Amino acid sequence: MTMRISVILAPDVAAEDELTGRSCVVIDVLRATTSMIAALDAGATAIYPVAEAEDAWALRAQLGDSLLLGGERGGLKINGFDLGNSPREYTSEAVGNTMLAMTTTNGTAAMLAAARAGASPIFIASLRNAPATARRLLREGRDAVLYCAGTNGRVSLDDIIAAGAIASVCEESRSRATLTDTGKLALAAYRLASRDVAAALTATIHGRRLVEIGFEGDIRYAAAVGASQTVAQFDGLMVRVAGHLLR
Amino acid sequence: MTMRISVILAPDVAAEDELTGRSCVVIDVLRATTSMIAALDAGATAIYPVAEAEDAWALRAQLGDSLLLGGERGGLKINGFDLGNSPREYTSEAVGNTMLAMTTTNGTAAMLAAARAGASPIFIASLRNAPATARRLLREGRDAVLYCAGTNGRVSLDDIIAAGAIASVCEESRSRATLTDTGKLALAAYRLASRDVAAALTATIHGRRLVEIGFEGDIRYAAAVGASQTVAQFDGLMVRVAGHLLR
Repeated sequence: MTMRISVILAPDVAAEDELTGRSCVVIDVLRATTSMIAALDAGATAIYPVAEAEDAWALRAQLGDSLLLGGERGGLKINGFDLGNSPREYTSEAVGNTMLAMTTTNGTAAMLAAARAGASPIFIASLRNAPATARRLLREGRDAVLYCAGTNGRVSLDDIIAAGAIASVCEESRSRATLTDTGKLALAAYRLASRDVAAALTATIHGRRLVEIGFEGDIRYAAAVGASQTVAQFDGLMVRVAGHLLR
Repeated sequence: MTMRISVILAPDVAAEDELTGRSCVVIDVLRATTSMIAALDAGATAIYPVAEAEDAWALRAQLGDSLLLGGERGGLKINGFDLGNSPREYTSEAVGNTMLAMTTTNGTAAMLAAARAGASPIFIASLRNAPATARRLLREGRDAVLYCAGTNGRVSLDDIIAAGAIASVCEESRSRATLTDTGKLALAAYRLASRDVAAALTATIHGRRLVEIGFEGDIRYAAAVGASQTVAQFDGLMVRVAGHLLR
């Protein structure tokens, strides 16, 4: 039996397959999962995704000042936090060999929701590590649900393009994953965007908002499909590197 | 200001734009809206979409035996009804110069939901009259929400392909409609499907189910993009021809 790839297009939008007991990939391209992959690539050892800023402060009270706090509300750094949600802040100088707590409007909420729904394992993907994540899914060979974090509960095309990038690698593999209707829809979005991914991201609702508040560079960074070989796994508590997959 | 085209990907999935006060196009390609357009093209004068079979019977008690009853549950004709939900049943011999009451699992529910949400005007579209409907939207020049009926509350790719066919005509027009993220997603689905629309419909979840229960011919019928020039409008009570648009 081939593996099935379905997509949750936004929170509260049912995919064809339940999350319970299936592999899940949480995607928030602009920008939570892109920043998390940047942090891991820069040497952060673990990231705790938390729902609210106060949860991040509580974790710091527990784990001490070496825990860095990152995230955004309204796209901007939270007051008193060490880092915002721009992936380009997550350099090895800033986060190398540290632990982080992060809270964002859409991405961390989606990760926590996937864990509550019983998905296992849960991976975290951006466009940068989409091919590496797809190859990990293929190696595991189990049905997978790609969970798009969306923007404030609505469909966000940037996330669906990244889901399509994963679906594309899975479909082209020799194991021939089966795409459900939502999987095909994501694949179509990626194919249309793939000639110029940065332009496609910039034209999304979320992309235009980021340009308005001065984060155009983040979009170019987020658009680099395959730039990272990191596979990142969320165990329900923290996100850590689960492997670096080369072709 | 250009008109915006957004898409409700399935019931309960928010589009970027509210329905209230906007033009709306309800789409259920397999097969409710395809059958309704077939009925109007065959000379039916009005179609009452109703939620339940008992509503159809109540309407017949009120309007008399000349009212024909059509629709499906589980894809099959409802016991005692005159017609099922196969568009090829809606010939001029069967429905010419008659009034119909119809109830289907997804399509009629979506039409009634659009009316309750305050959309106005509400059009009914299939792939067959997608270009004619798009030209009507362009002529009106108002923001429009394309409402995909889905299948049992879930995303149904066949409906999104038809939404994309409408978005495609709108985007290519001189008035240059703006597509939201969901509009672009539907356009991508249509572009990927457009080389062989019948094959794309057959490969959807809903298409495969129809093949299983013997309605493969309905899929070929539904896939004929542009075969009908009928614009069909739902006034909250009944669906009637609102014009035949030629290029």
